[in-house]
Amino acid sequence: MNASQPAVHPVEAPPLREGAMNNEPPRMRMKDTQGMPGTVGGLGLRLSQFVFSLVSLCVMVSTPDFNSVTAFNHLVVAVSLQNVWSLFLAILDIYALLVRRSLRNYLITRVFAIGDGITSTLTFATASASAGITVLVANDLNKCAGNHCASFESATAMAFLSWMVSLPSFLLNFWSLASQ
Amino acid sequence: MNASQPAVHPVEAPPLREGAMNNEPPRMRMKDTQGMPGTVGGLGLRLSQFVFSLVSLCVMVSTPDFNSVTAFNHLVVAVSLQNVWSLFLAILDIYALLVRRSLRNYLITRVFAIGDGITSTLTFATASASAGITVLVANDLNKCAGNHCASFESATAMAFLSWMVSLPSFLLNFWSLASQ
Repeated sequence: MNASQPAVHPVEAPPLREGAMNNEPPRMRMKDTQGMPGTVGGLGLRLSQFVFSLVSLCVMVSTPDFNSVTAFNHLVVAVSLQNVWSLFLAILDIYALLVRRSLRNYLITRVFAIGDGITSTLTFATASASAGITVLVANDLNKCAGNHCASFESATAMAFLSWMVSLPSFLLNFWSLASQ
Repeated sequence: MNASQPAVHPVEAPPLREGAMNNEPPRMRMKDTQGMPGTVGGLGLRLSQFVFSLVSLCVMVSTPDFNSVTAFNHLVVAVSLQNVWSLFLAILDIYALLVRRSLRNYLITRVFAIGDGITSTLTFATASASAGITVLVANDLNKCAGNHCASFESATAMAFLSWMVSLPSFLLNFWSLASQ
């Protein structure tokens, strides 16, 4: 008889995705440099910005006479803004890391770059103004007796630290915007 | 007879390069955005930086007691640096425009971006510090009688203007560095 016989072609099982069996996170794409949104480095930068700006805010607000100096008032506003922005982006980073989602999107990167640019510039400007006044009071006029120089210096230093960890976020976002 | 005859294929003359006959400058490459080194816009930015920083320097140095305030001393140093840097790059831009040479080279762009970043950050920091002190003296303490508030304000404003025309240079260089 010449009846047709079903031909069986053995099909190889597709190779398992690397690391899928032992719960390793999927490999990042080449361009996801540490420090960018959605990476552990990016989350670290955001949390550092948040902590430094919070300490700066608390120290400045705790001094009784910060209200009489315009620059110190502006510092409080700027570090508050930096604080809220960094907290928001830290939450977004945690979400992206938990659901393993990439935040590399042109619109998101642009919003992040603009926001980082504005907040870091404001923080830097007010920190510089506060530093100028603190040095004037402490060194040029030697009037630390009636003023809270230590508090002003600490708040200014913390604001500078907040700017220093905010700058890499801005530069990385701007870089990734340009290279897209 | 069946002798071979040379076939003559008329060849069109190659078209003349556009503008080669009437001495028009060669067209810029697509990526040479105005404002980048070696362009007329870039030269304009450099000359603006030079003029604003020079005016800021002259006004600040002309006040007799600027020496007693640390922030004003730093402003003088920062705008001097900005001044020299901008003049150097303006000369380089004029040279590049005269000999019609492109300054789009990875090393040159990197040096320009780093230099612009440093000078503009210093100018901005010292301008902010001077602004903080000027506002403190003029508004918070109302002590303009014995001080040269107008001069301090002018010098600070000029330093800010110098920073404002320095920032596009930095951002354009950084952008072109990232997109190379």
